[in-house]
Amino acid sequence: MEEKIKQLRNLLVEISDLRNTASVLEWDQRTYMPSGGAEGRGNQLALLRRLVHERETSPELGKLLEDLKPFALSLDPDSDDARLVKVTARLYGKALRVTPKYILELNRVTSLGQQAWMEARAKSDFSIFRPHLEKVVALRREYASFFPEVEHPYDALLDDYEPNMKTADVKVIFDGLRPKQVELIRAIAGKPQVDDSFLHQPFDEKKQWDFGVEVVTRFGYDWKRGREDKATHPFSISFGINDVRITTRVNPDYLGSMLFGSMHECGHALYGMGCAPELDRTGLEGGASLALHESQSRMWENLVGRSLPFWECFHPRLQQVFPQLADIPLEKFYKGINRVQPSLIRVEADEATYNLHIMLRLEMEIALLEGSVTAGDLPQMWNQKMQEYLGVVPPDDARGVLQDIHWSTGDIGYFSTYALGNLVSVQLWEKVNQDIPDLTEQIRKGQFNTLLGWLGEKVHRHGAKFEPQELVQKVTGSKIDPEPYLRYLTKKYSQIYGL
Amino acid sequence: MEEKIKQLRNLLVEISDLRNTASVLEWDQRTYMPSGGAEGRGNQLALLRRLVHERETSPELGKLLEDLKPFALSLDPDSDDARLVKVTARLYGKALRVTPKYILELNRVTSLGQQAWMEARAKSDFSIFRPHLEKVVALRREYASFFPEVEHPYDALLDDYEPNMKTADVKVIFDGLRPKQVELIRAIAGKPQVDDSFLHQPFDEKKQWDFGVEVVTRFGYDWKRGREDKATHPFSISFGINDVRITTRVNPDYLGSMLFGSMHECGHALYGMGCAPELDRTGLEGGASLALHESQSRMWENLVGRSLPFWECFHPRLQQVFPQLADIPLEKFYKGINRVQPSLIRVEADEATYNLHIMLRLEMEIALLEGSVTAGDLPQMWNQKMQEYLGVVPPDDARGVLQDIHWSTGDIGYFSTYALGNLVSVQLWEKVNQDIPDLTEQIRKGQFNTLLGWLGEKVHRHGAKFEPQELVQKVTGSKIDPEPYLRYLTKKYSQIYGL
Repeated sequence: MEEKIKQLRNLLVEISDLRNTASVLEWDQRTYMPSGGAEGRGNQLALLRRLVHERETSPELGKLLEDLKPFALSLDPDSDDARLVKVTARLYGKALRVTPKYILELNRVTSLGQQAWMEARAKSDFSIFRPHLEKVVALRREYASFFPEVEHPYDALLDDYEPNMKTADVKVIFDGLRPKQVELIRAIAGKPQVDDSFLHQPFDEKKQWDFGVEVVTRFGYDWKRGREDKATHPFSISFGINDVRITTRVNPDYLGSMLFGSMHECGHALYGMGCAPELDRTGLEGGASLALHESQSRMWENLVGRSLPFWECFHPRLQQVFPQLADIPLEKFYKGINRVQPSLIRVEADEATYNLHIMLRLEMEIALLEGSVTAGDLPQMWNQKMQEYLGVVPPDDARGVLQDIHWSTGDIGYFSTYALGNLVSVQLWEKVNQDIPDLTEQIRKGQFNTLLGWLGEKVHRHGAKFEPQELVQKVTGSKIDPEPYLRYLTKKYSQIYGL
Repeated sequence: MEEKIKQLRNLLVEISDLRNTASVLEWDQRTYMPSGGAEGRGNQLALLRRLVHERETSPELGKLLEDLKPFALSLDPDSDDARLVKVTARLYGKALRVTPKYILELNRVTSLGQQAWMEARAKSDFSIFRPHLEKVVALRREYASFFPEVEHPYDALLDDYEPNMKTADVKVIFDGLRPKQVELIRAIAGKPQVDDSFLHQPFDEKKQWDFGVEVVTRFGYDWKRGREDKATHPFSISFGINDVRITTRVNPDYLGSMLFGSMHECGHALYGMGCAPELDRTGLEGGASLALHESQSRMWENLVGRSLPFWECFHPRLQQVFPQLADIPLEKFYKGINRVQPSLIRVEADEATYNLHIMLRLEMEIALLEGSVTAGDLPQMWNQKMQEYLGVVPPDDARGVLQDIHWSTGDIGYFSTYALGNLVSVQLWEKVNQDIPDLTEQIRKGQFNTLLGWLGEKVHRHGAKFEPQELVQKVTGSKIDPEPYLRYLTKKYSQIYGL
């Protein structure tokens, strides 16, 4: 059996190396590639995806997994080998269900769909995107049909982003969250607004960049195993645990993009860098799920980066770099970066309103999967829910239903992981503050190594060994739970807005 | 047969896409990759090379080529399809001879060899590199033994870089060249030296970069299908005909590195960008040979970029960018950038001495292949030949036998293509000046589109359809010939040095 485990690992190494190769190509595509390279790059990536899929569904892999199943059951269920067999068998079983014809068709439809979406958004004309979205929805419904055993068709989609998470569970979580977040926002709206105009003024781009580098370096980002570049839509990406890169956007007239964007991507990257070396090139090196990944990015961005103790340390330094902030005292600065304002665009939303943007998307996705609404119903449904949850209505579809790329790429099922990540970030935060009682004091001194060490030990090193709910349970003692997040929001904004 | 041609093209598309994928990984490795990524990148590249080799030697490809051979003979021999079958069959036949064991062993030995070479060069201690070089030489002799039919064992190596070029032919060419180049250098040494000290002073790095960009833009480099980045060892690389990138090095205390380096790499890139679209992703898109590629880089660097007409246009502009050159008149500038001075380092050599650096390397490589010398004899042989050809002797091996990376990577057989490229550049130059009588006048006005159009039509668009000697013959009416280069050198330096 040792020999068969070795054979399994050899197959997984090849899949992992091909995936990492594709990631290098994607990184270049999103940072430096000249426009002329787009078609060729598409061809190269399509080939790599096919080579990966062939290997992920190979009879050789299936036979090995079959042979190894009894052996894996004889091992410590939390051992690397047991988990490797379990996780790989799960993914193999799923990949086998999907027909090569479906993959080709999804690639074709989403490739055209993305182009149509870009044009539709630029012209704010939903009718351009609508026929493409209809095809995407039909294909995603077909995907769900490959898994007839699921309780709800949406489960089949969600599972790809959030292993073993059920639609019903997400609904329960969101149902507990929504009325209280709506209530909180209304309460805040009744109070005098805080001022964040000082964030909106010209800031030297080079100085912004350098300050971001300084912060992520203090967080513990390892420059020997990563680098930072500029990108229009910032992201973090990994080519293995020893090359985990971040990107950022520098807005010359607004400090927030670079500042919180850099912390966010650094949070993702620290997760990737913290994986145990023995999991590298096994397929388990990538993080437990999108929600767990988002919990890390949001923790460093919000729970650290938008906290008062953090700015007690960094506010004087920021004023030194940008003398134009000299007359903005700490408290005013802190309130400004935490301003709550219902708005139209998800990616610009504050902590109090963000999840509501997710909820309306999730409800629409579920309805599309159930067939109770069609693509054509979305613009109206979007505006109605925006009014209901956030009290604002987009003046056009570009700032409404057309704002996100996800549906055009076929990523129906993805959105809820953003909100779940917010919840998990605070669950972990409550736990780490119990385990490290002087954490606030450390952050006040700009020391993050104990925090990073704790995250490494509890979360990062395990990679994708554990399912997300399982990991959250192991670390915090409960499954994904909205209560800590609500406690956090209420406490934070009561103080800021004097509720 | 049309169906089989289509099948052949489909196989070649996959090989080409895999090669281009590897090139993206190499570009990143040589520009931006953090040190931690080195091991993972090595693994990814080794996998891609294996996938390429599997496809290049697949029985499916062999069968198709066998079936297509008679059909190809019935076509116009210069048609794309006929050439595609011919060139692919040639490469297939060669790849089949090489054992997978040899490839693995060469990868292993050269991987260790490169590390040893770097250490040996840093410490100027040949004994560190010697045992590795011995293994490389043994392996390259083994490679030659896979082709027992060749006239000289070195032919087998040379053929990989310069298809169908024979050692005997190169010897004849170099034997005609060497005494005359040595004589020319001696004559120059008897004349007063020209001053180039103005090139060696601080130059603003950003302004250097921008000036280089301005020049290659004027040459016709297409920024929609390429980009420029910094690299310690500048190179040009292609990911298909619509993404052909260049790199450059900016030395803050010497203008020459950026200036002539950028033109050189642009010359390579224009070749890649000029290939006919119908050859893209066939394996024929890469240029006829290394010598042909070098003929393009050297033409733009030397025949254009170190010419008086070019600087009649660009000298005032350079003075505008760098006011510190205001008191350097055109003639002095022109002489300075063409200073001849026998020196130790090949990559810094001027046009009059460069080929001699190549010749001594070629003689040593041939002797190694013949077995008449061993790796241990090289340092002494190196110094003796440097004295004989250039009249200078390295004070240490770092500036002697250890200066180039090529032998550590297994690239025995590569060097002569540099010198052959110089010769071809002038053969083409004589021809283009016959075809475009007012070319000098155009260059004086900073107009390069007619030149680029001519090169595109005669050379670039053909990619690797023709063998290098065949292409040179087609365009110039004769095979590779040293006489034009000698005429060029003599005329140029007689004028500069008053011989």
